[in-house]
Amino acid sequence: MIETMTTADWLAERNQALCCEVELVGLDELRSWEFRPGTHDLVHSSGQFFSVHGLDVRTGERRWKQLIIRQDEIGLLGILAKRFDGQLQFLMQAKVEPGNINRVQLSPTVQATRSNLTRVHRGEPTRYLDLFTAPGRGRVLVDQLQSEQGRCFYRKRNRNMIVLTTDEVERHENYRWFTLDELHQLLPVDNLLNMDARSVLSCLPLTELYEGRALHSTQDLMSWLNDIRMTNDVRAQLVGLCELGSWQPNPAELADDSFRLVGVRVHAIGREVGSWEQPMITPLRPHVIAFLTTHLDNAPHVLMHADVEPGTLNVAELGPTLDRAPDADEDGLLSHVLESKPLFDTVLSEEGGRFYHGVNRYLVAYTTDPAEPGPDYRWVSVRQLESLVGQGHHVNVQARTLLACARANLKL
Amino acid sequence: MIETMTTADWLAERNQALCCEVELVGLDELRSWEFRPGTHDLVHSSGQFFSVHGLDVRTGERRWKQLIIRQDEIGLLGILAKRFDGQLQFLMQAKVEPGNINRVQLSPTVQATRSNLTRVHRGEPTRYLDLFTAPGRGRVLVDQLQSEQGRCFYRKRNRNMIVLTTDEVERHENYRWFTLDELHQLLPVDNLLNMDARSVLSCLPLTELYEGRALHSTQDLMSWLNDIRMTNDVRAQLVGLCELGSWQPNPAELADDSFRLVGVRVHAIGREVGSWEQPMITPLRPHVIAFLTTHLDNAPHVLMHADVEPGTLNVAELGPTLDRAPDADEDGLLSHVLESKPLFDTVLSEEGGRFYHGVNRYLVAYTTDPAEPGPDYRWVSVRQLESLVGQGHHVNVQARTLLACARANLKL
Repeated sequence: MIETMTTADWLAERNQALCCEVELVGLDELRSWEFRPGTHDLVHSSGQFFSVHGLDVRTGERRWKQLIIRQDEIGLLGILAKRFDGQLQFLMQAKVEPGNINRVQLSPTVQATRSNLTRVHRGEPTRYLDLFTAPGRGRVLVDQLQSEQGRCFYRKRNRNMIVLTTDEVERHENYRWFTLDELHQLLPVDNLLNMDARSVLSCLPLTELYEGRALHSTQDLMSWLNDIRMTNDVRAQLVGLCELGSWQPNPAELADDSFRLVGVRVHAIGREVGSWEQPMITPLRPHVIAFLTTHLDNAPHVLMHADVEPGTLNVAELGPTLDRAPDADEDGLLSHVLESKPLFDTVLSEEGGRFYHGVNRYLVAYTTDPAEPGPDYRWVSVRQLESLVGQGHHVNVQARTLLACARANLKL
Repeated sequence: MIETMTTADWLAERNQALCCEVELVGLDELRSWEFRPGTHDLVHSSGQFFSVHGLDVRTGERRWKQLIIRQDEIGLLGILAKRFDGQLQFLMQAKVEPGNINRVQLSPTVQATRSNLTRVHRGEPTRYLDLFTAPGRGRVLVDQLQSEQGRCFYRKRNRNMIVLTTDEVERHENYRWFTLDELHQLLPVDNLLNMDARSVLSCLPLTELYEGRALHSTQDLMSWLNDIRMTNDVRAQLVGLCELGSWQPNPAELADDSFRLVGVRVHAIGREVGSWEQPMITPLRPHVIAFLTTHLDNAPHVLMHADVEPGTLNVAELGPTLDRAPDADEDGLLSHVLESKPLFDTVLSEEGGRFYHGVNRYLVAYTTDPAEPGPDYRWVSVRQLESLVGQGHHVNVQARTLLACARANLKL
């Protein structure tokens, strides 16, 4: 579809039309949220949405307690695709989320929690949802359950879908069709493609037919990952918030080592519900999240690290080469990344419905050094990484973002 | 390897040599087990092995509380393979488990919980374990995380491995090499191949190269399964045993709708630890667990049911055509199975380390009726089923048993 307005003009217009006033309030002041008697867990009065608990984590050597968000339901992140004059285009939504550091970001066509699906919050029905869920939907190109941040979420995952429709689609003003090339050109814009959009795009296999041999067989990679899953004794148990150290009844704010939990009061225009209140995660500081890439036997490879996170369903998933605060570099790996040839270097936001001003620096760098820095690292070909993403629950959300960014910028 | 003794003689001899005296005792009498103060959960005093809790389950329409076994760790089920004169053989162990309804059953080469791996119980090291876990192990043919009964276990899974070694392997008297054909001939023997052996064998892809087109594309099957996962709102929360109705402190026995929990005192010969005590699951009665099979477009297909179970990691997994008490047949499906041509009909045991006398009737039947009896059923080709098993967490343990049995008996 040929749009009459440039992307920049459309975004500027949407940034005018949509807005979201966000006011920070105490957790104890949140309307419809309460600290449940006894455990003091923070829950919505409907029992829906999500809840905040303590997590008691024991590994072989360490034990700690931390905050964790629980959201058992599987939400839907769907991008609608359609061919126009033979060319595949993707329908993206200009969406404001309360946690966004800016206003509008590009999100999937549909971004729906079960609460949206069942309309617990009594708002308007989610636009285009039927094209993903109704019988007779179009051809499903991607349909995978994928994890989200295992540091903050207890076993959260969403269903990532791309559906190719042949139906006529009426385009609402908040939506716009983009080719894959156009989306790749927008990825390096700071805080434009939102986390959900990056995750869904990463699930689209693009390099299946590429030549070049992977350094390790996929079977060897799975065994390496399963070795780590079997030997890392991570026992994570949900406990009441009152079991966290230094608990005070009805706190205005909660914090642990890596994030604070704050309350927000939201007034939005152009969303299903006009105003609401909710807790949000505020990371203590931005991380550098990086892929080191290289070519081995002509095949593009990425240096993956096996990340063990307490909320992960599968104990360990493949994560980026590194994901750390910018001053943490005991092993010199961050320096190595920063001294390598940069291919991509952009500040991107985490999901603005859960993270308040959660931004990280995403880096893709190119090295000619084929060393694996330790037993928890493996060079994985981009084609292998796509195939592991395709199986679900093997590649974490930070790495999926970087896969999308790397493919847009790496000579494949 | 050509064995000098027949399988029957070797089994008879092992049944003489190995034994296990099992005495039923009250749960409150179990040495080293205790009802934890407060929640009254039943735990081992080391904090290891497994523990027994309540599970509060809410679905869209129903809410109930039940018993559940929690075992967070990932155990190892490994079969060692080796070529003798070009022929692949598998090293199986004659093993007595306290819950076995008979004495010896054939188990994988290695069947180890983390407690075995780390030797919490201070017994002898697990034989052949290094061939699966040490650097320089042989070629890995299978390495998958697979679920166990989601009705009784909270998110339990084990690592299923087959490793092809070229090392010289000293054969201990409790172990014997079998070809795949020989194992297929032993599957129809009542209570001989144990659940773990069946599970590992089912993971070996055998029909990859077979012709014939599947009725549904694999993408369509995944979307059907993900639809069910997304729309079934199953919220399962671990709660203390004392939250189960009719709780009495320090009970000798616990029961819910489908199983009782009993205590056993075990004296074994030929195991890592000579004597111990533990709780075990006693199913209230045997189920009929069946695959209905047919050929569609020349490809063997199996009628799979999407099973939603409260302890399942992935909400729903592909289960058998049916799995029910023999008098439950409101929908007539059991009659349909029983009237179809029988290909396999054998009583097989569930895992004898957790289930006390847990046996079920496993049936594979052949029909020429290609109907799908409802929206939760799909015909899946055997080749597709193998590939879904290979991804892990998609096919439940009852269906994996039946896959192993069907392949041994169905004209592929």
